[in-house]
Amino acid sequence: MSPHLLSVDSLSRDSVDHLLRVAARMEPIASRRQVTRVLEGAVLGNLFFEASTRTRVSFNAAFCRLGGSVCDTTGFTFSSMAKGESLYDTSRVMSGYCDAIVMRHPEQGSVAEFAAATHVPVINGGDGPGEHPSQALLDLYTIDKEFTRLGKSLAGAHILLTGDLKYGRTVHSLIKLLSLYDPMRLTLVAPPGLEMPSHLIDLVASRGHRVELRDSLASDFSDLDVVYTTRIQKERFTEEMSENFAGLSQDFTVDRTFLDARCSDTTIVMHPLPRDSRPGANDLNVDLNGDPRLAIFRQTDNGIPVRMAIFATLLRVDDQIERDLRPVRWFVPERVGVDDAHF
Amino acid sequence: MSPHLLSVDSLSRDSVDHLLRVAARMEPIASRRQVTRVLEGAVLGNLFFEASTRTRVSFNAAFCRLGGSVCDTTGFTFSSMAKGESLYDTSRVMSGYCDAIVMRHPEQGSVAEFAAATHVPVINGGDGPGEHPSQALLDLYTIDKEFTRLGKSLAGAHILLTGDLKYGRTVHSLIKLLSLYDPMRLTLVAPPGLEMPSHLIDLVASRGHRVELRDSLASDFSDLDVVYTTRIQKERFTEEMSENFAGLSQDFTVDRTFLDARCSDTTIVMHPLPRDSRPGANDLNVDLNGDPRLAIFRQTDNGIPVRMAIFATLLRVDDQIERDLRPVRWFVPERVGVDDAHF
Amino acid sequence: MSPHLLSVDSLSRDSVDHLLRVAARMEPIASRRQVTRVLEGAVLGNLFFEASTRTRVSFNAAFCRLGGSVCDTTGFTFSSMAKGESLYDTSRVMSGYCDAIVMRHPEQGSVAEFAAATHVPVINGGDGPGEHPSQALLDLYTIDKEFTRLGKSLAGAHILLTGDLKYGRTVHSLIKLLSLYDPMRLTLVAPPGLEMPSHLIDLVASRGHRVELRDSLASDFSDLDVVYTTRIQKERFTEEMSENFAGLSQDFTVDRTFLDARCSDTTIVMHPLPRDSRPGANDLNVDLNGDPRLAIFRQTDNGIPVRMAIFATLLRVDDQIERDLRPVRWFVPERVGVDDAHF
Repeated sequence: MSPHLLSVDSLSRDSVDHLLRVAARMEPIASRRQVTRVLEGAVLGNLFFEASTRTRVSFNAAFCRLGGSVCDTTGFTFSSMAKGESLYDTSRVMSGYCDAIVMRHPEQGSVAEFAAATHVPVINGGDGPGEHPSQALLDLYTIDKEFTRLGKSLAGAHILLTGDLKYGRTVHSLIKLLSLYDPMRLTLVAPPGLEMPSHLIDLVASRGHRVELRDSLASDFSDLDVVYTTRIQKERFTEEMSENFAGLSQDFTVDRTFLDARCSDTTIVMHPLPRDSRPGANDLNVDLNGDPRLAIFRQTDNGIPVRMAIFATLLRVDDQIERDLRPVRWFVPERVGVDDAHF
Repeated sequence: MSPHLLSVDSLSRDSVDHLLRVAARMEPIASRRQVTRVLEGAVLGNLFFEASTRTRVSFNAAFCRLGGSVCDTTGFTFSSMAKGESLYDTSRVMSGYCDAIVMRHPEQGSVAEFAAATHVPVINGGDGPGEHPSQALLDLYTIDKEFTRLGKSLAGAHILLTGDLKYGRTVHSLIKLLSLYDPMRLTLVAPPGLEMPSHLIDLVASRGHRVELRDSLASDFSDLDVVYTTRIQKERFTEEMSENFAGLSQDFTVDRTFLDARCSDTTIVMHPLPRDSRPGANDLNVDLNGDPRLAIFRQTDNGIPVRMAIFATLLRVDDQIERDLRPVRWFVPERVGVDDAHF
Repeated sequence: MSPHLLSVDSLSRDSVDHLLRVAARMEPIASRRQVTRVLEGAVLGNLFFEASTRTRVSFNAAFCRLGGSVCDTTGFTFSSMAKGESLYDTSRVMSGYCDAIVMRHPEQGSVAEFAAATHVPVINGGDGPGEHPSQALLDLYTIDKEFTRLGKSLAGAHILLTGDLKYGRTVHSLIKLLSLYDPMRLTLVAPPGLEMPSHLIDLVASRGHRVELRDSLASDFSDLDVVYTTRIQKERFTEEMSENFAGLSQDFTVDRTFLDARCSDTTIVMHPLPRDSRPGANDLNVDLNGDPRLAIFRQTDNGIPVRMAIFATLLRVDDQIERDLRPVRWFVPERVGVDDAHF
């Protein structure tokens, strides 16, 4: 594996498998049954040039659970960069302070530019419309873990991706990772104008997967294993698209009716979050809260073991985790969340 | 005790006594003579949707002194909530990352709403005009500790609450906690229009305490044990109140003259802080700095053992603290503050 | 040594020597070959009333590498100070939470005022145009370390300070520290109007050093050991100065041509950073990136051992470091930065 994690494009099937295996070994720590101290003394620079509470806290907590310390920085600009400091200088300076760096930045390519100036492992925490590889890895890990629980397998699975498939970077990265595995069936449902880019469809098809395109959810999905939904942002629409969309919007809403009428008891629902819970938001409906098929919070929970696995692998302590595990001494609720009863 | 600490209303006399006892056992750690590692590996989400350096740092330091790690978040909005994420989703997501959550939020009830979506212990760090239970607990702990030092007892004590008794949430919560104890004498002094709400007076009286209302400090307080003062914010005034107040303001200022002329050598002065030290601020006078009766900094110091006790109790490690204490290895000044010589 | 580090003026030659020696013993930890836990349980209040990513992260990481925990606070105002709280109150309150405090504040003298209210060690992290003593110490440490590597000695060294010598607080503090050592030769090159204040020149001269003033870099510097350059900020200029400067600016730019044509193979280049890498910035040229004489990143790297030494000395654990060193378990790249190959 490269010293950095900048893009899913650099990940081979073997390196993905390795990360998923390490993540599984992190579960006892992530679910707070055991404690490790393997990264004691290590410092993470958690550099967020763009606000993101969820991702920032997830990386922070993952590093802490490995025993390390975190220096957080949030803000649209860094003070020194406002004074004309280059990304090169910032990167090189931070390398002297930190053992690993997570960086989120609004400009595509900026994290890669940052990484080029250092040998300290850099993880792309999202660079605008570019990449967010740890999200794709936790999505894949979630599918794999849910399938194991349900006695299913990735090979031959039927996965539906719906919503804004044009601008959503998470679905682009996820489809690339899925394409590394045995042939499956991918159904893509997007409103006109927000379809998956054709080069990604071609890539997936060229690797032997069966891809179907549809423009509505009004079909039989009784064999569906996963529905991965993303928000449709009306701000993306041209005037013409808005007019066309008005009559269609119901067709893209994943809710309890859709799941009960068209899917099965073992169809799981995923979403990269945050979801917009305001009325008329064209996002995953809150009426599924409490339904065991709703996997969105198990999905965010999985961010911890997956990010722990990324840190452990890049910092090469992935084979030392078992060495000093100790039991957790504090109280951990049996059900951390109230809504995600298992099947 | 409930899994959360949202309000003093949910605290029984027994649970308050328990917290005070645990806080007392935290003193060797809080005063930096010993170190514990009981929460090693645990992560606190310290979520401040409203700025508060003092309270945020106090919770943060308390969790660190138990051996845990802290993810801080400050800001008027969270990035994902700005995108329409519900408190429910935010809460459930954070539960997957953290072992306990402290939350401050400008809207009353929001912390309780947040807590309803998780089984991870949630501590209300202040929800606008609502509650701030850890402040009331540290206030009570301070009175108890000062009384012990002075050979006094809560039963039969004479406590004066003065300043803005209408809008000050700290005096409301404190009076509720005091009312759980043996009968004492409470004198309430507020300018017209800023009096203690009558339902609180009724509550305290119904529990057997003697309550006296006055509209000035110009009385004999030679038997007074505690004066708890809060700032009168002129912004709260109507025009009529402003006119009336002009001639009265001296009557509500706690300063050295008041203490020397009307109180005794063992009357302690408390304040929730911050106090406004600007001229004409109608707040506790700085001329008491250095006077041993000024307990305001011992009071903030007590925030550490009390918040440690809250964490330890909610996370159920309150009976494990003594297990692995070790001596502090670094230098701790004998007198941490320069102004609060003891009696 | 005083309980605080507020100014280089309070440092004797002996205390500087001590700090440099302790810093050298921190190298195995700072370069991540070993881990200590000597400050486990200690809490640093890292209070930045003014943005500064670099300095803030450097202090934070240094404290973490000693085993301590850090409470960071950033922002132009503290919430409680906006409500009229005095520096005195803020300082005294923070003393109850933290074992040491680093403070940056835009107003000169404010950090000293803050320190006067507490016995907890306070480190000045920069008070506007005032002091930034840890920067001067890391600059001196860098010169000393580079000289040792090159078989040189401070006694008799030739050091060039160039750029804005009037407003740059770092050159003022550095020259004071250098003046404590055996006689050396200091050349000062500044454009008209930005010369070193005469009282500093007098101080240095009175301690036996040879000081030369020049108004351009167009000389022979073949015996130069160090060029320390700072940015010339055009915003500082009067109109007249701007006109005069137009023709001169080339004369103050340190770049590869200057180093190759006028200096030697062992002349090292330093800069307090950040440098302005935008075109026409009148700052240290990026064409030196990758040149082993460019010591600016080794200089920022040295911020970690030097700040560790400051903490360890003020908290009096400087003689306990060796006691519990353990090897680092994670991967540390051989060359942390890509551009600073050694000679």
